[in-house]
Amino acid sequence: MANFDEVKHAKVGSAFKATGKLIRSPKEGQPFELQVCSAEAHMIKLLGAAPADKYPLPQKKHTREFLRTQAHLRCRTKLISAVARVRNNLAYATHKFFQERGFQYIHTPIITASDCEGAGEMLTVTTNLPGPGKPISSMKLLERAGQENEEEKGAEPKISKAYAKKLAKKNAAKAKKDGKPVEEGVAADAGATTEEAKAEAPAAEEEKKEEAPLIPLEERKVDYRSDFFKKPAYLSVSGQVHVETYCCGMGDVYTFGPTFRAEKSDTSRHLAEFWMIEPELAFAELFDVMDCAEDYVKYCLRYVMENNGDDIEYFNTMVDTGLKERLLNVTDKEFTRITYTDAIALLEQHLKEKKVKKFNEKPYWGIDMGSEHERYLAEKVFMGPVSVYDYPKDFKSFYMRQNDDGKTVQAFDMLVPGIGELIGGSAREERLDKLDELMVAKGLVLEDYWWYRDLRTYGTQPHGGFGLGFERLVMMATGIENIRDVIPFPRWWNKADF
Amino acid sequence: MANFDEVKHAKVGSAFKATGKLIRSPKEGQPFELQVCSAEAHMIKLLGAAPADKYPLPQKKHTREFLRTQAHLRCRTKLISAVARVRNNLAYATHKFFQERGFQYIHTPIITASDCEGAGEMLTVTTNLPGPGKPISSMKLLERAGQENEEEKGAEPKISKAYAKKLAKKNAAKAKKDGKPVEEGVAADAGATTEEAKAEAPAAEEEKKEEAPLIPLEERKVDYRSDFFKKPAYLSVSGQVHVETYCCGMGDVYTFGPTFRAEKSDTSRHLAEFWMIEPELAFAELFDVMDCAEDYVKYCLRYVMENNGDDIEYFNTMVDTGLKERLLNVTDKEFTRITYTDAIALLEQHLKEKKVKKFNEKPYWGIDMGSEHERYLAEKVFMGPVSVYDYPKDFKSFYMRQNDDGKTVQAFDMLVPGIGELIGGSAREERLDKLDELMVAKGLVLEDYWWYRDLRTYGTQPHGGFGLGFERLVMMATGIENIRDVIPFPRWWNKADF
Repeated sequence: MANFDEVKHAKVGSAFKATGKLIRSPKEGQPFELQVCSAEAHMIKLLGAAPADKYPLPQKKHTREFLRTQAHLRCRTKLISAVARVRNNLAYATHKFFQERGFQYIHTPIITASDCEGAGEMLTVTTNLPGPGKPISSMKLLERAGQENEEEKGAEPKISKAYAKKLAKKNAAKAKKDGKPVEEGVAADAGATTEEAKAEAPAAEEEKKEEAPLIPLEERKVDYRSDFFKKPAYLSVSGQVHVETYCCGMGDVYTFGPTFRAEKSDTSRHLAEFWMIEPELAFAELFDVMDCAEDYVKYCLRYVMENNGDDIEYFNTMVDTGLKERLLNVTDKEFTRITYTDAIALLEQHLKEKKVKKFNEKPYWGIDMGSEHERYLAEKVFMGPVSVYDYPKDFKSFYMRQNDDGKTVQAFDMLVPGIGELIGGSAREERLDKLDELMVAKGLVLEDYWWYRDLRTYGTQPHGGFGLGFERLVMMATGIENIRDVIPFPRWWNKADF
Repeated sequence: MANFDEVKHAKVGSAFKATGKLIRSPKEGQPFELQVCSAEAHMIKLLGAAPADKYPLPQKKHTREFLRTQAHLRCRTKLISAVARVRNNLAYATHKFFQERGFQYIHTPIITASDCEGAGEMLTVTTNLPGPGKPISSMKLLERAGQENEEEKGAEPKISKAYAKKLAKKNAAKAKKDGKPVEEGVAADAGATTEEAKAEAPAAEEEKKEEAPLIPLEERKVDYRSDFFKKPAYLSVSGQVHVETYCCGMGDVYTFGPTFRAEKSDTSRHLAEFWMIEPELAFAELFDVMDCAEDYVKYCLRYVMENNGDDIEYFNTMVDTGLKERLLNVTDKEFTRITYTDAIALLEQHLKEKKVKKFNEKPYWGIDMGSEHERYLAEKVFMGPVSVYDYPKDFKSFYMRQNDDGKTVQAFDMLVPGIGELIGGSAREERLDKLDELMVAKGLVLEDYWWYRDLRTYGTQPHGGFGLGFERLVMMATGIENIRDVIPFPRWWNKADF
């Protein structure tokens, strides 16, 4: 071969072009090799060398922390490329699963002006911030008293007076019956505020006609009217309420897109930017949704076990020797189902019988279970995935369907060994009066949700869905324990490198 | 049937549950019907009524403008649900196409701290803006002189002095040879600035030790060090530079995700949030990339013609009677390929021969072709899709591979009738010296692209890719002319409703 000299000194990280004969390797532990001989059609060419003294990833073991600083090169390692291949197939399996079942893939918006489920801190999207080097006096600010942003006007509850009073009365009556004080007084206040605002409105109108006084600089507010979307806008924390509109119009649907949380946490389990899958089933009840969630997880894991056999084998050897057994325990086993009430009773019983020494937080009915409880249930009690359902309504979202017991809602969490909560879902409250009741109790402004409420006003139907953090699924399928290693370019608090 | 009375007055927009026998309809123009008779297993139940006097979408023709104000209900119309079904299948076909060819789906980041291709105005992501109702004095601001944001420090060019000088020298020599002035003096300045900065650095350091004076409020700048990502962060305008890192590490890859532009335009062709598909082919040259782009478009359109036959028929009847013919003209025809130079010559010739009366802008070599030229080429000259390649380097991006003529780069645009530019792509410049040359000429700071340059330093290989705005593809497949009608919840300048 003419150019063997050129290529024989090339080091790891180099790129070649080679033409030859692919044969089964006679060497043990090496499946095949490319024979580049002196035949005319055969050749090997060095396309790009990698200077051995400078290449950041020479052939040795690197820590995952170090690899994160080389996010542009780390997919050249066996570990990170295997993660990428599994991630790819989990994504494709997701689409295959839902498409085969007739679900429509819907792109819900990333930028939203509504804090849809109050799921946490949001990142603001703006063109109003002065760039680096520019003073704040260059920002668009409200100059005079009486100028108003849309959002600020919206700060007063916008439900109708009559409706608020009716709800307040009902809540007060119920509270009296239960012997509890009126819950946060939200509904009772709402009516009053609207009343006051109405009384004040004409006076305010007249004042505006005169030239209002200038506001001192330090008291000025951002003029959101001049922002890109003319009002405060945020990155979506969930596509659920948006995808529900399509579910109520077209039937079974799902989302698969990025979601965001401005959580100031620096842990191995949280990202500021992550991908979520949110299916929504039309004409469905809680158990239909749970069936779908279980089938989906099984389908995805089976798909990668069949299509990423080598990668799974590698993870099982190098990352987590219990991986394959744990995966089979999910794909081949019936999922346990248990109500929240029974699950709490079980935890209490295990404590009493000293099967478990102690929990950091003692379990009791009404507690928002912590990771320790969830993992204990999945890992020690049931030794496999378990779906807990019918949770107390107090710490769950406003849109979940209320049970007749008056205490619980039709929510479920799927708990799996090694991960804890993998999926959260619910039947949605399709009855408008019940929905409003919970929204008001949770201090939400009905008017802000006018279009969500419309779904219950016009042709409402029982439906439900769930959400799965895609990175959790990748962690589960690979055994990788740090979420920063299962997404190509992780973003979290203080980190948006590359 | 017992409950026929309950359901017989229900109006459009209502939801039912019905069990019965599905039969071929004896009525003309109605493919099937559900027989709900009095048999025991048969039933019909009204789940949710829709008050006829209030329902926003009664059974009549609505304008598309009006439907946009009902984005939560408009998928209940035949038009918008058909769009959603076609969009769903175009998305699935995209995944199928690339998966069948061994491409890996990569999730590139949405939030980025680098303005990767300078493709336009960006939206800022922040937690630093005071919410509505809060004064600007509550923002985190730089208080004293000498405090510095990371980005501001980075404003001085960070290429090494020696390297900048070398490039400046080379550029000056070349300019002299060409008889042109030194291009914008970027490279020449870069060295000087770094030199000056270095000379001043020790003095600045000492000053900082004393208590620096307070900055007056109006001159204060935003303290990006306290922002969520500790520096200015933006919504990505393209995943290309990020996906290239995976292409150089793993082979063929693609992205499919949302991208953003803060363009203040209120047209039927632009959105602030839209979805993009960006494949990147390893060990590939320009024509390989063009082959892939052409195959991809054909595959997607064939897929919806086969799987959305009824919807396409509907669009062909109700929206655009030329649709089917135009689609067949793409799926069944060889795409024309022509160099930019030849395309311009053709336009000039057509003008001269009076085949075309006039263009708003006269075509000449060096012009960045406008929509009028692109559509004329596709619609009048070639009457079908045409890929134009080898564009002048001056108005193309820094990462495109330079041709030996010194004037053009290996970029291509795919132009299609009715749409204009559907796809833009290029072979990437894999030679580090050539890449640096173009970056410096375009005024970019090399150091900001250190990790992108690393791909050319370690095992570089010829590769290339393209980008397709997904909504353009949906418009093409449906004949819908306004981009706001092919995405569920459109966002544009001043609009982020729902």
